[in-house]
Amino acid sequence: MIAPLLLSLLPMLATAPTIEKDNDAPRPNLVVIFTDDLGYGDLSCYGHPTIATPNLDRMAAEGQRWTQFYVGASVCTPSRAALMTGRLPIRSGMCNTRRRVLFPDSAGGLPASEITLAEALKDLGYATAMVGKWHLGHLAEFLPTNHGFDSYYGIPYSNDMDRVASAPEGRVAITEPEIEYFNVPLLQDTRIIERPTDQRTLTRRYTEQSLRFIRDHAQGDQPFFLYLAHSMPHVPLFRSEAFVDASRRGLYGDVIEEIDWSVGQILDTIRELGIAEETLVVFTSDNGPWLTYDQQGGSAGLLRNGKGSTWEGGMREPFLAWWPGTIPTGQVVPDLGSTMDLLPTAVRLAGGEPPSDRVLDGVDLRPALFGAGPSPRDSMFYYRGTELYAVRLGPYKAHFITQEPYGRDTNRIEHDPPLLFHLEHDPSERFDVSADHPEVLATIQALADAHRASVEPVPNQLEARITAD
Amino acid sequence: MIAPLLLSLLPMLATAPTIEKDNDAPRPNLVVIFTDDLGYGDLSCYGHPTIATPNLDRMAAEGQRWTQFYVGASVCTPSRAALMTGRLPIRSGMCNTRRRVLFPDSAGGLPASEITLAEALKDLGYATAMVGKWHLGHLAEFLPTNHGFDSYYGIPYSNDMDRVASAPEGRVAITEPEIEYFNVPLLQDTRIIERPTDQRTLTRRYTEQSLRFIRDHAQGDQPFFLYLAHSMPHVPLFRSEAFVDASRRGLYGDVIEEIDWSVGQILDTIRELGIAEETLVVFTSDNGPWLTYDQQGGSAGLLRNGKGSTWEGGMREPFLAWWPGTIPTGQVVPDLGSTMDLLPTAVRLAGGEPPSDRVLDGVDLRPALFGAGPSPRDSMFYYRGTELYAVRLGPYKAHFITQEPYGRDTNRIEHDPPLLFHLEHDPSERFDVSADHPEVLATIQALADAHRASVEPVPNQLEARITAD
Repeated sequence: MIAPLLLSLLPMLATAPTIEKDNDAPRPNLVVIFTDDLGYGDLSCYGHPTIATPNLDRMAAEGQRWTQFYVGASVCTPSRAALMTGRLPIRSGMCNTRRRVLFPDSAGGLPASEITLAEALKDLGYATAMVGKWHLGHLAEFLPTNHGFDSYYGIPYSNDMDRVASAPEGRVAITEPEIEYFNVPLLQDTRIIERPTDQRTLTRRYTEQSLRFIRDHAQGDQPFFLYLAHSMPHVPLFRSEAFVDASRRGLYGDVIEEIDWSVGQILDTIRELGIAEETLVVFTSDNGPWLTYDQQGGSAGLLRNGKGSTWEGGMREPFLAWWPGTIPTGQVVPDLGSTMDLLPTAVRLAGGEPPSDRVLDGVDLRPALFGAGPSPRDSMFYYRGTELYAVRLGPYKAHFITQEPYGRDTNRIEHDPPLLFHLEHDPSERFDVSADHPEVLATIQALADAHRASVEPVPNQLEARITAD
Repeated sequence: MIAPLLLSLLPMLATAPTIEKDNDAPRPNLVVIFTDDLGYGDLSCYGHPTIATPNLDRMAAEGQRWTQFYVGASVCTPSRAALMTGRLPIRSGMCNTRRRVLFPDSAGGLPASEITLAEALKDLGYATAMVGKWHLGHLAEFLPTNHGFDSYYGIPYSNDMDRVASAPEGRVAITEPEIEYFNVPLLQDTRIIERPTDQRTLTRRYTEQSLRFIRDHAQGDQPFFLYLAHSMPHVPLFRSEAFVDASRRGLYGDVIEEIDWSVGQILDTIRELGIAEETLVVFTSDNGPWLTYDQQGGSAGLLRNGKGSTWEGGMREPFLAWWPGTIPTGQVVPDLGSTMDLLPTAVRLAGGEPPSDRVLDGVDLRPALFGAGPSPRDSMFYYRGTELYAVRLGPYKAHFITQEPYGRDTNRIEHDPPLLFHLEHDPSERFDVSADHPEVLATIQALADAHRASVEPVPNQLEARITAD
């Protein structure tokens, strides 16, 4: 058991299985569909009993369904920074312990020095578009069109921000959300085109914008990259008229079922345009379910805890990959993967080389996507803000610190020795086996130390405000 | 909301949608595959991340996967009585509050006055066989061959019974089970052919016996009924050599993956024999996962609690139905169903009439199985022993009593008003909505009263012992 663990001590230096680039291979279009606060257990194909997701289930049946796929952080801004950069947010300054995400009064955003997935693909000749929630800085310099996207349509931060004075205060379940409570702007590129955004129709409008982009770029030699980041199911929950009371699961289910409809529209359009065999579509979310919103939050299924937490429910997400003719059909993939892997994987697929002037935390997932071999990923780092709380290596996860995700009594506990769970035997993190495996703890401790040594100090982007405190 | 609830006040008297019997319709073979202590979350197609069940996943893709399917009790003996009789175990005397199942010293068993699924189908001309764990009485008069089965091969009660003196005592996880610890007999019809049973090869041998029966009865006009009741994954866990360390999930996963292999063998054989379009195969289990066995117990997924409990995790199970050409493919069915429905459904499919001289708690599921309409079931009664603890009506479940399933501190709580959960909005039973819906509570209370009035006193079968206390 231990020898392979030691071999993988420094995964960022590990060499992925060599895949010879086929110069004749078509460079695929890439569509990344990203949701907000979706739980591991919220799709029918991941076991939810009363949310109907026939389009996502079909996507899984026609492609791969991954069961141990991670995001880069358990809250919005750092998770999206990880997706865009292929790096843990600690490396870009896009995480913070006190203010954990960007707010409307934040002065920071994703630094121009970062290379985004959009920039990398644009440099390789791709047409690029973003539709949806950005949350990596709302000042002009930080917006998607200044980070590699040719166009942008969406809201710049979370849909519960910009609360007006008449709105209810605090973290309360908003059972009858009034559209006027939230003064969130809708942007076209860098221009506000609607404020407040009519959130009831947002999933539908995002879908229409996405379909237009796909249709406009289906012909010709230029491949495209579309990043569709739904604002939902982040509270306050909204859905269009057609989905009111559509779901047995209530409002939350309505919202998921509209997203499922949207996925169906996108895959159907790709099929109808005859570009399915040239298009890789992936579906995942930014972090786990917001459990403190009770029935308006989702479910992490059998995983422990949710959004904001470094327990599995906070950072493990559904991940579906679909590419007819290339990705095997109906495959359940228990290998490790991460949103950070999308950048190096996509750049390789596009015939390029991932950036070599900086540490990338992502690995090239092509062997696993093609069904040709195991994922090269064998570890995962779980940060809360700027602190490393837990590390997974192979099937084992050590928690150095645990903490409730929110609230005044966050019950922060430092564990010495760390808690240790065998996540493949015990996915719900119920049985601490640290006493049985001191050698695993030592190996993970060494991996954590090596990782920390690889992190260089950078300016924090989440602390500064436009107006003084 | 309430009018339909009132209409369904007495579901045992409700008339199912009329389905005209087609005299030319072939009477299908029936195979019931039943496991022991399998959790709602233990199959890949129900969301388990590290148990690989490709054959069950394929069965679901080729048929129906039900998400709100119930057993008749949360422990072994009464659950099996419900399956065999189509009646709640309170009606046959096959439940008890103190000794909740039959033991090797028990004097009772399923009364001869009960009409079993096997008897009903045998009367309609079926060849019948049982393979596996019975647990409805081990004295000769109670054995399967005296309850409608032409033949029997299996163990008469649970695989952790008949513990020898040198075995560990009490409810402890048995990490290295020794085959000699358990002196469980293996029966052929009513004769002991092996003792102790070599449990390591039992799943494989049950499969071989089942395949032999299917092959022997594939030709000719006589339809067959096979009841294959695996002894696993009830602790102590055993699997054959080929499955040792086969699963990422450890020993428990090995055991499930051998059962999955067995299902594949049976479906493949049915296909190869050319009888797939004449054969209905269903897969389910007797009750939820035995959580007190830690990593040797399974997972109820997002459902609360497990075996022994009247929370959902104790009584809701995976249920797959497969019948190529008749049952729609790839359908997720959120309708209510129960193992008690198999008897009236199978008898109708066989061209017969369910018994009319007694109360049946099962309903005819044909509309839902055929994809022709909703399930006629709209309620469920949750007993612990002889006491009614909870009632589901439509999406609502009222708990009159809750209790931890095992242990000294069982924390029995009577709730007045009852706890009320909307199971379709809140499948994990987290949010009591009793204060919001007094009218639902009143309707469920009336349903519970009517149900209790329909229960006639019968002799208890589980209390009496062969030797005095």
